[in-house]
Amino acid sequence: MTERAQAIAAKVEAFVRETVIPYEKDERATSHGPTDELVQEMRAKAKAAGVLTPHILSDGSHLNQRETAIVLIKSGLSPLGPLAVNTMAPDEGNMYLIGKVGSPEQKARFLEQLVSGESRSAFFMTEPAAENGAGSDPSMMQTTCRLDGNHWVINGRKAFITGAAGAKVGIVMAKSQDGACMFLVDLPDPAIRIERVLDTIDSSMPGGHSIVVIDNLRVPASQMLGASGEGFQYAQVRLSPARLSHCMRWLGAAIRAQEIASDYACRREAFGKKLIDHEGVGFMLAENMIDLQQCELMIDWCAGVLDSGSLGTVESSMAKVAVSEALFRIADRCVQVMGGMGVSGDTIVEQVFREVRAFRIYDGPTEVHKWSLARKIKRDHAKAHAG
Amino acid sequence: MTERAQAIAAKVEAFVRETVIPYEKDERATSHGPTDELVQEMRAKAKAAGVLTPHILSDGSHLNQRETAIVLIKSGLSPLGPLAVNTMAPDEGNMYLIGKVGSPEQKARFLEQLVSGESRSAFFMTEPAAENGAGSDPSMMQTTCRLDGNHWVINGRKAFITGAAGAKVGIVMAKSQDGACMFLVDLPDPAIRIERVLDTIDSSMPGGHSIVVIDNLRVPASQMLGASGEGFQYAQVRLSPARLSHCMRWLGAAIRAQEIASDYACRREAFGKKLIDHEGVGFMLAENMIDLQQCELMIDWCAGVLDSGSLGTVESSMAKVAVSEALFRIADRCVQVMGGMGVSGDTIVEQVFREVRAFRIYDGPTEVHKWSLARKIKRDHAKAHAG
Amino acid sequence: MTERAQAIAAKVEAFVRETVIPYEKDERATSHGPTDELVQEMRAKAKAAGVLTPHILSDGSHLNQRETAIVLIKSGLSPLGPLAVNTMAPDEGNMYLIGKVGSPEQKARFLEQLVSGESRSAFFMTEPAAENGAGSDPSMMQTTCRLDGNHWVINGRKAFITGAAGAKVGIVMAKSQDGACMFLVDLPDPAIRIERVLDTIDSSMPGGHSIVVIDNLRVPASQMLGASGEGFQYAQVRLSPARLSHCMRWLGAAIRAQEIASDYACRREAFGKKLIDHEGVGFMLAENMIDLQQCELMIDWCAGVLDSGSLGTVESSMAKVAVSEALFRIADRCVQVMGGMGVSGDTIVEQVFREVRAFRIYDGPTEVHKWSLARKIKRDHAKAHAG
Amino acid sequence: MTERAQAIAAKVEAFVRETVIPYEKDERATSHGPTDELVQEMRAKAKAAGVLTPHILSDGSHLNQRETAIVLIKSGLSPLGPLAVNTMAPDEGNMYLIGKVGSPEQKARFLEQLVSGESRSAFFMTEPAAENGAGSDPSMMQTTCRLDGNHWVINGRKAFITGAAGAKVGIVMAKSQDGACMFLVDLPDPAIRIERVLDTIDSSMPGGHSIVVIDNLRVPASQMLGASGEGFQYAQVRLSPARLSHCMRWLGAAIRAQEIASDYACRREAFGKKLIDHEGVGFMLAENMIDLQQCELMIDWCAGVLDSGSLGTVESSMAKVAVSEALFRIADRCVQVMGGMGVSGDTIVEQVFREVRAFRIYDGPTEVHKWSLARKIKRDHAKAHAG
Repeated sequence: MTERAQAIAAKVEAFVRETVIPYEKDERATSHGPTDELVQEMRAKAKAAGVLTPHILSDGSHLNQRETAIVLIKSGLSPLGPLAVNTMAPDEGNMYLIGKVGSPEQKARFLEQLVSGESRSAFFMTEPAAENGAGSDPSMMQTTCRLDGNHWVINGRKAFITGAAGAKVGIVMAKSQDGACMFLVDLPDPAIRIERVLDTIDSSMPGGHSIVVIDNLRVPASQMLGASGEGFQYAQVRLSPARLSHCMRWLGAAIRAQEIASDYACRREAFGKKLIDHEGVGFMLAENMIDLQQCELMIDWCAGVLDSGSLGTVESSMAKVAVSEALFRIADRCVQVMGGMGVSGDTIVEQVFREVRAFRIYDGPTEVHKWSLARKIKRDHAKAHAG
Repeated sequence: MTERAQAIAAKVEAFVRETVIPYEKDERATSHGPTDELVQEMRAKAKAAGVLTPHILSDGSHLNQRETAIVLIKSGLSPLGPLAVNTMAPDEGNMYLIGKVGSPEQKARFLEQLVSGESRSAFFMTEPAAENGAGSDPSMMQTTCRLDGNHWVINGRKAFITGAAGAKVGIVMAKSQDGACMFLVDLPDPAIRIERVLDTIDSSMPGGHSIVVIDNLRVPASQMLGASGEGFQYAQVRLSPARLSHCMRWLGAAIRAQEIASDYACRREAFGKKLIDHEGVGFMLAENMIDLQQCELMIDWCAGVLDSGSLGTVESSMAKVAVSEALFRIADRCVQVMGGMGVSGDTIVEQVFREVRAFRIYDGPTEVHKWSLARKIKRDHAKAHAG
Repeated sequence: MTERAQAIAAKVEAFVRETVIPYEKDERATSHGPTDELVQEMRAKAKAAGVLTPHILSDGSHLNQRETAIVLIKSGLSPLGPLAVNTMAPDEGNMYLIGKVGSPEQKARFLEQLVSGESRSAFFMTEPAAENGAGSDPSMMQTTCRLDGNHWVINGRKAFITGAAGAKVGIVMAKSQDGACMFLVDLPDPAIRIERVLDTIDSSMPGGHSIVVIDNLRVPASQMLGASGEGFQYAQVRLSPARLSHCMRWLGAAIRAQEIASDYACRREAFGKKLIDHEGVGFMLAENMIDLQQCELMIDWCAGVLDSGSLGTVESSMAKVAVSEALFRIADRCVQVMGGMGVSGDTIVEQVFREVRAFRIYDGPTEVHKWSLARKIKRDHAKAHAG
Repeated sequence: MTERAQAIAAKVEAFVRETVIPYEKDERATSHGPTDELVQEMRAKAKAAGVLTPHILSDGSHLNQRETAIVLIKSGLSPLGPLAVNTMAPDEGNMYLIGKVGSPEQKARFLEQLVSGESRSAFFMTEPAAENGAGSDPSMMQTTCRLDGNHWVINGRKAFITGAAGAKVGIVMAKSQDGACMFLVDLPDPAIRIERVLDTIDSSMPGGHSIVVIDNLRVPASQMLGASGEGFQYAQVRLSPARLSHCMRWLGAAIRAQEIASDYACRREAFGKKLIDHEGVGFMLAENMIDLQQCELMIDWCAGVLDSGSLGTVESSMAKVAVSEALFRIADRCVQVMGGMGVSGDTIVEQVFREVRAFRIYDGPTEVHKWSLARKIKRDHAKAHAG
């Protein structure tokens, strides 16, 4: 691991532990996420501490994925951490994508305000899973765009759009006759109507997850991100790193949950001895210790694959399944160790449990990833036994 | 199964499906439970339909436990159902206990208002798990009562007191020099101060779960329930049936979650076919089918043990572990089958998932029950190999 | 439960505990099952004790399925028990089938020698799962029969034929132009060649499991069991009871494994206390206690469905999955509790573990049953939402 | 990874795949392990191919642990592989230990014959778990040694001594008044009597696992390994690497099982399509893919800890639990995917399943490791909160 990454990670950890964690009890950290005021207050402190958007260096270059991992894990030690230091989803992935594909003009206009932490953004890809649609199957995209003079006109519905409410920058995906396209848009825009913000089990994302109607949205051609028809290719560029960055942040949260549960078990007594001395409790914490280690290794391994230049589609599917399922087990055990306290909002353990439950579905449910891994096994077999 | 119970169960099911379920979308069914207004509105309809407090007959007698099971399962088909028909915790257990132990005067004054559905009640037993205490270990009770003339004076702190806020009737447990005692009290009382209502993962109980301070509460001697020092014995009477009635109600909720998830899987398509035709989905629903059947059998078996006159402590521990863990698996699979919809409040599946997570801890965490089952194995071995 | 069944079960239990279990250390109880000599020696004692073929009464009638359950569970307390008292597979199912479908002449000739315990039998249904075949999919049957004068001529290959080596009676399944047919045959017959006896993980069945070639086997028309083309219907008659009787016998074995592991845990010490006092051990035995109870309830429930006259195809699939998977967990925990002793042949625990591993595949792998349960969910949904 | 290790690993893989795997069908590869004749035949070929004892270089130095891992994994691709190339337990650990602690004379006499593959060895540490003893708790060692002139006289009983039957070299552990001691002995010796070879579920170790009586064994003082009273310290040196090398070899076997099951699933059809196209099958293989990756990462991580100079006691406990439990899941799924074929000896999958079942107990049952990890959590907490 590079020294620069270790130094950044250490600073982020100190900031989260000393400055962010105390905000967890702030009234503005509501059950629907922190208010924008609180986010801006924390970001001002992050900027002062030199840890705002810590994975993007001052020259605009990014830490590589393995370096990013150790930084984002630390930012996740509090559910408020990624918001405070600007490493949260979907912004982290959006910044990455615009950085890779955007023109200099697009970067100046849309990327800078994100990197500086002034604005939030949203990624408008998934669509409502009506009776004839399905959220996890991107081939079913229905939103269209057509060229009308020097503008594109976009129509469709989007679902589960994280952070749409309150975002200043949007990346919208739609289908032209060339295939999928992406557009950068200023928000809010009257043609992008938030039908409703879903009431979901997780609560860390400001703006929540929305159902959105796009009704004759007109976007200047210069705001197309990359080329027409290349949208799925760009989505691939964003896909694995964004998926992996979820793993990083939530691993940080699980590490913290384990700290809280261990502390509880080492202090509290029942039936004549400390909880930690009950094997029924101690074994759960030991299993967590192993699961946490495995998550860290899977993330580092997958990050290394990405750093080697691969798209890492298979590897990030493997990592996403392994890590999200492990984090859920870890959080579930922490809740159980803490008993009544574990299902209350008195510590963040209860929130982490809810967040990682959702994570088993967000960014592709476990089953969709297993399905694609099975297809990989079949392809490899066919290749090995081909003529 | 008796005909009377089947008839009552059928009426309750019809009422819950036709009248209660539509209220799930009512604004008064908040994320902190239904408002008292909504509860009273539903109860008026339940009374009109002849399904209010359906497990207690007009002569004051109770259905036996096996009969109660099929009625309470139906009442649980909606998280609002038990509230609507007055089969919810802790009232169901409190009515049972007062019915068994109360004097005629106590029944007239405290029981009738509960059976009629006018008031709610709370059971003040568990205490704060501070560093020197533990919620699941009743032997650590610290609340005291001492006789002062014709009154008992009670002091202590209670924790996780379900439904305390808004209750009209309380059963308070405290230790005299004879041992544990129980008292019937009118609520609210300034000497019983609700320190705070906990913010917990579950949300079906009106009044939530409170931390309570009891500060020089004076109770007339005539309001002692039963005899001084017999409190733990009465708690035993209430224990197994109350524990089992949780299993019944939440089984009903899980049955409904399975209906919702199955309907979803049979309608929705992804990757070229209905979800139900994906084994990854179909197998989860098949596993639920088996788990639901096993829950029903465990409840019926344990109810039969109670009906035979046994306290059923071991059997209700077995049932509680088996059912709560199975219901959690069921709810978790329903969430997963439904993807993004499963983690949203658009159906009750998300709530059922949160409720049964808490149920794995409420009424004794799984681990405490396993611990007492292991002791039972040891005792039986010692007995079999004694002299 | 009927008194007659309880009395029979008690006698069977006493016989197995006092007479059969000591034979487990007999040299003739080899790792490939007991020798025929040992089987006959035990059966002579069973006859003398009045417990041979205990589920078939002297008038030829059978105990019903719920009664059968409590008897067969007791017979399974030793892996040698079913052989000793003649309740083992495949004979139990074969006797049941001939009793239901056979003509008086067929019964006199083929059934009597089985009921009396003189001979063993085999059921020739499943076929080799070559690249174009599959053991679990009966629709793929390739074995044919054609009428040639007064005889049927049968050709084909069969696989996993339990007990074929050494059997005196065979039931052979083949396809005529009418559909599937069944035939009763005397064994051995040179036209039924045992290609090889498979070396399998389980070892309780005398004769093991064979691959068999049927080469121009000629069977008199009078030996057709029932009518031509009705074979699958008869297979259905045998299917659920036979499937359930596996559950019964192996439940008995798991009960015994739990007895052995509990005894071990209550006697042995490690790290300063009895194993049972280590929660890591005690919890495993507690989980077994719950799983055993659930198995008993599932078997009783499914037996009741069969006794009501249903084919019980869905219910026996549910029971088979639930029980076989639970028995595996139980056996696995018993092995683990006993450490090095658990993986040695010093007790029957190691054998029970191997047997129930195979049981998760025999009689339809878990996955095939889940697949058919998912189809049931789909059918029920279609029915409920049909015009 | 170093180039030298990659080159060695590639050679070992080629040798195992081309030369060793065909021997799996040899009659001398019995269900009690390969005969000594077969072992010597394979070793002669291994020597010719330059892959005998591949992890020890010609100058006597060892590959480091991370290098060793990739070599030993390849050697494990067949259950016969470690025997063929001399990387098997307990010899690999014994060679390591003598290499670290032995005097030049001891190395010449005892180590050389092991490195050259001429002889096998055994490690006499664990003792019978009688009612007052326990195999997994080394502090309970009862075997004694006392100095008598220039010899030590050793008395005691040992249990589960792998490879004792047929070994030429023994390392015997006993307690002097200074503490634990280790001795190098020539075998066989009439004072070391093999009471019986256990019949165990695993079958890859030549010589099996024995119960041994040591009756006035006289060992010259010069054959003490290291110093008197330092035995547990030396056992620590051997502990983590030996534990980890089990993980390496069995990971190789699991990789092969996955290859066999995947090949089967990609070729075989049931219910209208290839097994791999059934999600019920494909998902199991996908889960294996993830589990295999995690095992590889855990081994590499723990090996790196050892290479850094740490004893790695905590890390090797974590790796042992994670890997052994994962390998069992993998093997269990491979068996299930293959149905009837999976529980037969027709492929090595059935054997791998049995071997890894035992591995969950050998070298410390999972529960003992979790217990020591929980103690580590407690120690760390105490340290963090100490004055």
